[in-house]
Amino acid sequence: MLRIAQMGVGPIGAAIAARVRRHPGMTLVGAADPALAGRPLDELLGVTGGGGLAVAPSIDDLLRRTPAEVVVHCAGSYLDVVADQLSPLLRGGVSVVSTCEELAYPVPLHPDAARRLDEDARAGSAVLLGTGVNPGFVMDKLVVTLMSACDEVRAVHVTRLVDAATRRVPFQRKVGAGLTREAFEERLRQGRFGHVGLPETAHMLADAMGLPPAREVRTTIGPVIAERAHESGAIPVQPGQVAGLEQSLVLEAAGVQRVRLEMRMAVGEPEPRDAVVIDGSPPLAMTVSTGVAGDEGTAAVVLACLPLVGALEPGLRTMLDVPIRPPWRG
Amino acid sequence: MLRIAQMGVGPIGAAIAARVRRHPGMTLVGAADPALAGRPLDELLGVTGGGGLAVAPSIDDLLRRTPAEVVVHCAGSYLDVVADQLSPLLRGGVSVVSTCEELAYPVPLHPDAARRLDEDARAGSAVLLGTGVNPGFVMDKLVVTLMSACDEVRAVHVTRLVDAATRRVPFQRKVGAGLTREAFEERLRQGRFGHVGLPETAHMLADAMGLPPAREVRTTIGPVIAERAHESGAIPVQPGQVAGLEQSLVLEAAGVQRVRLEMRMAVGEPEPRDAVVIDGSPPLAMTVSTGVAGDEGTAAVVLACLPLVGALEPGLRTMLDVPIRPPWRG
Repeated sequence: MLRIAQMGVGPIGAAIAARVRRHPGMTLVGAADPALAGRPLDELLGVTGGGGLAVAPSIDDLLRRTPAEVVVHCAGSYLDVVADQLSPLLRGGVSVVSTCEELAYPVPLHPDAARRLDEDARAGSAVLLGTGVNPGFVMDKLVVTLMSACDEVRAVHVTRLVDAATRRVPFQRKVGAGLTREAFEERLRQGRFGHVGLPETAHMLADAMGLPPAREVRTTIGPVIAERAHESGAIPVQPGQVAGLEQSLVLEAAGVQRVRLEMRMAVGEPEPRDAVVIDGSPPLAMTVSTGVAGDEGTAAVVLACLPLVGALEPGLRTMLDVPIRPPWRG
Repeated sequence: MLRIAQMGVGPIGAAIAARVRRHPGMTLVGAADPALAGRPLDELLGVTGGGGLAVAPSIDDLLRRTPAEVVVHCAGSYLDVVADQLSPLLRGGVSVVSTCEELAYPVPLHPDAARRLDEDARAGSAVLLGTGVNPGFVMDKLVVTLMSACDEVRAVHVTRLVDAATRRVPFQRKVGAGLTREAFEERLRQGRFGHVGLPETAHMLADAMGLPPAREVRTTIGPVIAERAHESGAIPVQPGQVAGLEQSLVLEAAGVQRVRLEMRMAVGEPEPRDAVVIDGSPPLAMTVSTGVAGDEGTAAVVLACLPLVGALEPGLRTMLDVPIRPPWRG
């Protein structure tokens, strides 16, 4: 049995922990979250059979009482916030799979923090892996896998279109649904708004393509303005209001565009899907017409990684290193 | 520099060896093929710069003169034919990446041969990996990767439709293009006809889905009869003649259909593509609308595996173990 501890019991952390609890090859030894300390874990996970476990106030407190092989970390999107949470775990020999978006591919963008975490993990013979559905899977790992069938990849264009009406309400708020254009612009000015991880995805793709490290990355972010009313969702959107947001990224090397990423996450997005176009030899085009679900996808991808981290070389690893496959085995 | 020796210089072997020659991180130390012994290697590969190397009569002869870390083996589709070629290499400490279709996933179908080869590889601290575009990638590895975003996979349906007119002439002959229905049926009776590898693909998918080993597999094979003339290809096909072949496989566990594979490879196939439908939570549908090329795809996938085999645990490995990514690195 793989012993798993959950750190952070927000919606994603709870979704992962519930799946760990259900998995016949894994044991959920407990969960820690300072904001939820003392709350009954079963209630937060929407499951039963946890034997009355309560949420621990800290992961140290939890691990002192009951050891785990892997901590699932869902407690922040930004490396500067989470690095200090991770170092003691890694040095103590506990591997970590994290949904922190900036951990999905940190070396090109946060080289100093990445080097320190790599040293911490090696010191503890532990593995640190950042993953999730995006960044970590649908716009990068899946695309890199497909690229392997090409002799040469000159450029790649990945599009992710999400109908926010099918996602949970906090996600709809996160993308700005129902805001006025002015309120959206104000949130933009406040910073740290929108999807985190496009640069991480772009550099993972660029490394898989073998591009030299001198790269120029430009990103854009802006509102998707509703042309018609969307009344059916949890957050009604009127024409002229913000339906969601769109973000793009272009990565150039030596002045040539090599990676282009586009995301649109809006209430009423008419044709949600994930699509890849590879300008290569041969050219390839792939579409996931159903799209790949966000929160559920992240939970599934994390679960798939849990049985695999133990076989990776100690240190900071990325999804490029992971032979991902579903976690349930015969 | 990764030192590669090529064993078997048919169309696929030559395509791979030419790519190895061009790759800046790999050295092609030579090639062996009893049927082509003494022929100038450059001429067979359609390249220059090989320093006048000739094809060696045997891989032993070649490796005795110039060592290699990995042998690329392209000398047969059937395990009973190739196993004895591979054992001495593996015991001698040379890893092998093979395009032998039955090696793509041999444990469920050829357990004794698989166990012996695994022992041979472990004895030599070498890795044996069977791969290619199909089996090995488009109907299995790529599908397993996508499955990782699902909580649960109840069933999977993979379709591969190839317009044989876009493939080389031997491939068109291989699928029976231009035959009468009677001649096609006669070739079927002679056996070992058609695509090899659907059962390997099915068991790889089933293992990734965690299905119990008690599985029932049924396959079908039959002609695709041309409804109209296809004059433009290398092999003209008249209405009523065979345009190609179609094969299918159904894998059941406990009486429930879990894997369905369909291939149609015919001159004039109207909508060539690769498609996956996953009946899971959530359901996913993915289409590679360009299709994934056959020979070029196999060459690319083999090349992608070459830098990765050294990091795998010694023994018989499969594509489930390989974090595949393009082989060129920055």
